[in-house]
Amino acid sequence: MDASLPRLPRVLITSGPTHEPIDRVRFLGNRSSGRFGSALADVAAAQGHRTVVLQGPVKFSPLRTDVEVRNFSTCSDLQTLLRQSTGGFDILIMAAAVADYRPKPNPALSGGKFRRTNAPLTLELEPTPDLLAEVSATRQPGQLLVGFALEPRADLLESARAKLERKRIDMVVANPLEAMDSPEAEVTVVYADGRVTELGMLSKAEHAPKVLALAVAEWRRRVGAKG
Amino acid sequence: MDASLPRLPRVLITSGPTHEPIDRVRFLGNRSSGRFGSALADVAAAQGHRTVVLQGPVKFSPLRTDVEVRNFSTCSDLQTLLRQSTGGFDILIMAAAVADYRPKPNPALSGGKFRRTNAPLTLELEPTPDLLAEVSATRQPGQLLVGFALEPRADLLESARAKLERKRIDMVVANPLEAMDSPEAEVTVVYADGRVTELGMLSKAEHAPKVLALAVAEWRRRVGAKG
Repeated sequence: MDASLPRLPRVLITSGPTHEPIDRVRFLGNRSSGRFGSALADVAAAQGHRTVVLQGPVKFSPLRTDVEVRNFSTCSDLQTLLRQSTGGFDILIMAAAVADYRPKPNPALSGGKFRRTNAPLTLELEPTPDLLAEVSATRQPGQLLVGFALEPRADLLESARAKLERKRIDMVVANPLEAMDSPEAEVTVVYADGRVTELGMLSKAEHAPKVLALAVAEWRRRVGAKG
Repeated sequence: MDASLPRLPRVLITSGPTHEPIDRVRFLGNRSSGRFGSALADVAAAQGHRTVVLQGPVKFSPLRTDVEVRNFSTCSDLQTLLRQSTGGFDILIMAAAVADYRPKPNPALSGGKFRRTNAPLTLELEPTPDLLAEVSATRQPGQLLVGFALEPRADLLESARAKLERKRIDMVVANPLEAMDSPEAEVTVVYADGRVTELGMLSKAEHAPKVLALAVAEWRRRVGAKG
């Protein structure tokens, strides 16, 4: 590597939804499309960053062949991938919409399919592991951790700040709920030290280079002249 | 139309899964991919049948531009489309995997997103309208109604026969559970009068012309020399 050039941080991105099985055919999902995560990955790879995407059952995948994609379906799959994968990366962007709850294991359902009846049915859910908190707690010094928050517009900034503090992450990309499964988003980036950068309403493809640039700048700021 | 040629029956096909919203971002879904329904539609259109597909949030759509596609997301959407659409068709192939249950309406959730806590959560479900039974009860004389059954292999024939009788349909395309979201299926076609045709294990693309031919033959047999 040419020593006169600054080192390009390696980027790991999680993208898309989780599907938590109820029985052999049914699942609990969310409407995350993978648009933002794959746009971020394509931009990062185009700029020469080593780029890996951990990807759920998405509608949109990265287009570039130099993005390495590893697939997950459940929160538990993603947890395993993260434990194997985060080590070699400088910037971790957690854009996946991970289920907060999953059906409690039910041996009566796992092998088959529950039957239709005319009676109501109750589905017992349990919290999933908190992957963002786990990555935060186990990350290496110098790794920048970027979360996503998707919340009602009225609570957006407050929720983003609470998430930054609760999960001890460095930046949150905050979107109102309307951004899910939409080509556009009104993005606000909130930093752990309280700074706020409004990016306004743009397509996710337009947001991707801006969000990546903010993350890279924050990583450089934190690693100082070493970067 | 050339009077010497038999009339080609018009074909309506439902395809893919339903997604039943839990809140603004989460839903209850199933792993139906739309492979079988879209393969049936492409074959039907290629053979000159007027072909309409009512399509859920699928991975696979018909490839031919002469297939007319109308989209649904929930069981209730599909019910509306079916009430509007079945009138002009001779063969109705219900390949969609419609949710049997959906979350009970919950005003506290519909505008937003439930919060993660460390406590278990209970989701109350209610049965969805039985669309196959409704179409069966309201269909016009001469309309052939074909259902799909996806059941554990051990109960497959028995479940298919029970479905034929309970819902008063004409043919059931029975698949073991493994067929869901798979390129292949081991298909058995069961008729209301007890006949059984085994099609064996083939790709869904290979099954499509065979299943369509059986449906068209059964329609002709029922409409007699008029067809």
